[in-house]
Amino acid sequence: MAVVVQKYGGSSVADVDRIQSVAERVARTRASGRDVVVVVSAMGDTTDTLLGLARRVSASPSRRELDMLLSAGERIAMALLAIALNERGVPAVSFTGSQSGIITSDTHFNARIVEVRPFRVQDELARGKVVIVAGYQGVSYKKEVTTLGRGGSDTTAVALAAALDAEACEIYSDVAGVFSADPRVVPTARRLGEISYEEMQEMAEAGARVLNAQAVEFAKERGIAIYARASGGGDEETLIRRFPPRAPGRIVGVASERGLVTLALARGADSALPALLEALDARGAGGKQLRSEADGASLVLSLENLPDYGALEEELTRRFAGLRFREGAGAVSAIGAGINATYRNVRAALDVMRRLDLAVLGLSTSSFRISLLIDEAAVDEAVRALHRELVEAD
Amino acid sequence: MAVVVQKYGGSSVADVDRIQSVAERVARTRASGRDVVVVVSAMGDTTDTLLGLARRVSASPSRRELDMLLSAGERIAMALLAIALNERGVPAVSFTGSQSGIITSDTHFNARIVEVRPFRVQDELARGKVVIVAGYQGVSYKKEVTTLGRGGSDTTAVALAAALDAEACEIYSDVAGVFSADPRVVPTARRLGEISYEEMQEMAEAGARVLNAQAVEFAKERGIAIYARASGGGDEETLIRRFPPRAPGRIVGVASERGLVTLALARGADSALPALLEALDARGAGGKQLRSEADGASLVLSLENLPDYGALEEELTRRFAGLRFREGAGAVSAIGAGINATYRNVRAALDVMRRLDLAVLGLSTSSFRISLLIDEAAVDEAVRALHRELVEAD
Repeated sequence: MAVVVQKYGGSSVADVDRIQSVAERVARTRASGRDVVVVVSAMGDTTDTLLGLARRVSASPSRRELDMLLSAGERIAMALLAIALNERGVPAVSFTGSQSGIITSDTHFNARIVEVRPFRVQDELARGKVVIVAGYQGVSYKKEVTTLGRGGSDTTAVALAAALDAEACEIYSDVAGVFSADPRVVPTARRLGEISYEEMQEMAEAGARVLNAQAVEFAKERGIAIYARASGGGDEETLIRRFPPRAPGRIVGVASERGLVTLALARGADSALPALLEALDARGAGGKQLRSEADGASLVLSLENLPDYGALEEELTRRFAGLRFREGAGAVSAIGAGINATYRNVRAALDVMRRLDLAVLGLSTSSFRISLLIDEAAVDEAVRALHRELVEAD
Repeated sequence: MAVVVQKYGGSSVADVDRIQSVAERVARTRASGRDVVVVVSAMGDTTDTLLGLARRVSASPSRRELDMLLSAGERIAMALLAIALNERGVPAVSFTGSQSGIITSDTHFNARIVEVRPFRVQDELARGKVVIVAGYQGVSYKKEVTTLGRGGSDTTAVALAAALDAEACEIYSDVAGVFSADPRVVPTARRLGEISYEEMQEMAEAGARVLNAQAVEFAKERGIAIYARASGGGDEETLIRRFPPRAPGRIVGVASERGLVTLALARGADSALPALLEALDARGAGGKQLRSEADGASLVLSLENLPDYGALEEELTRRFAGLRFREGAGAVSAIGAGINATYRNVRAALDVMRRLDLAVLGLSTSSFRISLLIDEAAVDEAVRALHRELVEAD
């Protein structure tokens, strides 16, 4: 029987009424004759609330214990949804990430899925049940509970869809698809009817929240079509799939990030770069933008992946002379294949910042993206202006 | 009837004997019952020889005239091959890029294909002829002859394959496929049986010569499988296609570039960045790595796309105070999806450079790549060491 994987984000299961609506939709899908696997996030702001509690208990909580704590959020949501379905007479069973066979790396707080062994899920589907899976979590090969980082429930959903050879993966959230910018920030942002995996990945890496970048990577590798929809209903959606035709140089959208920290090693101190990278890896803080030039080295970290930022900063400042931390940065990015075939778009973006009188703290380009590092307080203003200049004028 | 597009590089048509061998192979393919379109490069080093002649005539030859000059190279090769086929009793006809319907942007010397209208090619195939097409060239919508930049014949071949809905695109050169590094530099380099479009694009952008990056982009968009083979025969090949499964973090290979120039705008002078970018765009020199930080701005250009580099340097040095040119740089890159999930590979690469006592002039990372800017004289040594450390040890 055809399998469909549906993922519901935190806002879609934020309270009991919404969980009931989700149960309705799941029941309808099941009644249409398909096997249904449902991946749920934690209710509403549960994860942030739990994280806040941990911070009040300790400035540098251990990542292992954070994972134990945070993974509880999805378990609450999954159990409630299973109960709501059973109440409707729809047989349903809930599984944790571990029970669903989500095997991850052993990097706590930001683990990557390395394998999916969905045997128990398949068995229960064969018994005619709807299977509810806790998103955002897995188990490492060391048998430790791990979490997948921000947006990790998307990855759970796509990885399961791939492992189950599902006919579709549907991602429900509080926005009806992927927009050319966050519609809460840019009222004129337009919904993209379809978007390629590559474009979606760049949008997600640049900060768009609709879908997680690793999730898109999984979907791309296995050729799984993703439908992004609003859980509130309506027919609007964005289809993320292979290669929709698009004019070269066309700008897809604008995305942004806050909570960035730049680390700069002064000229002369950059021989310490390898040791600095090792220290960051040891704290699981690797992976974002890194550059080094004759004038020194710099890298950008995201606070989102650094629950123990205070301790990190203290340790590194002590160990590395000439290392400067700078907090309060944000990034705005414009995304589109061929965006840098000439410098035209970079020049337009710099011009926008000049007119807004915003200091550009950093600029980098790739084949798909222009990213500007600016004061995080100015991010929304910069997103609106860039969208007007590069997307709406297009 | 099924169409196959075969592209033969400069070394494959370097002399009359080799052109005869190509004719043999084309005749065999035709006899197997398929329609054949052949795209040829200029014979051997013809393009470099013509470029050398132009430079002896003028230090800053006009790009339009360069295109007129260089496009002659492929016309010689295509006509000779058509003659050789006719001599064998195989009806063949040759077409220039323009006659084949290769419509490009109007950037001389580095144009991009924007459309293919292969009506004449289709007519001649319908008449049972083998069609020989001059690679590397097209015609702009202003009816000017353009050339496609280094490796442009690959792009011609893939674009034609897409427009003709060909069942395969075969790229013949003097190496039997794509290797984990240039086998002339790294004797232990291994042939890759298959490689994804994304991996191939990163390899090509980082300097691997087997296939042009724009060509791979075309193939990716249209889902055309590319077979890279040696024209000398043998069964060995690399298949470039969608998503072969590969372990995450696996390093595909090492590629390199020479002839790079860095431009640095000193701190304080970086307000001139927009004007500098405009000047570069005006000379068609846009598009490579660009960064800017609090300490100033820097960008990397490739001499390969700058036939008028002398004039460019002179003009810009005059116009921009605080602009520093630095020639003689090269880049070595390691490529693989997930290569920067942690800083482990960056650290290993820096360690390799330290052991070789090579100064790292610049370092940048992306999701797919680690690139190190070094002295171009040390590129081969660095490629061998990186290959040993990151690919062979893998």
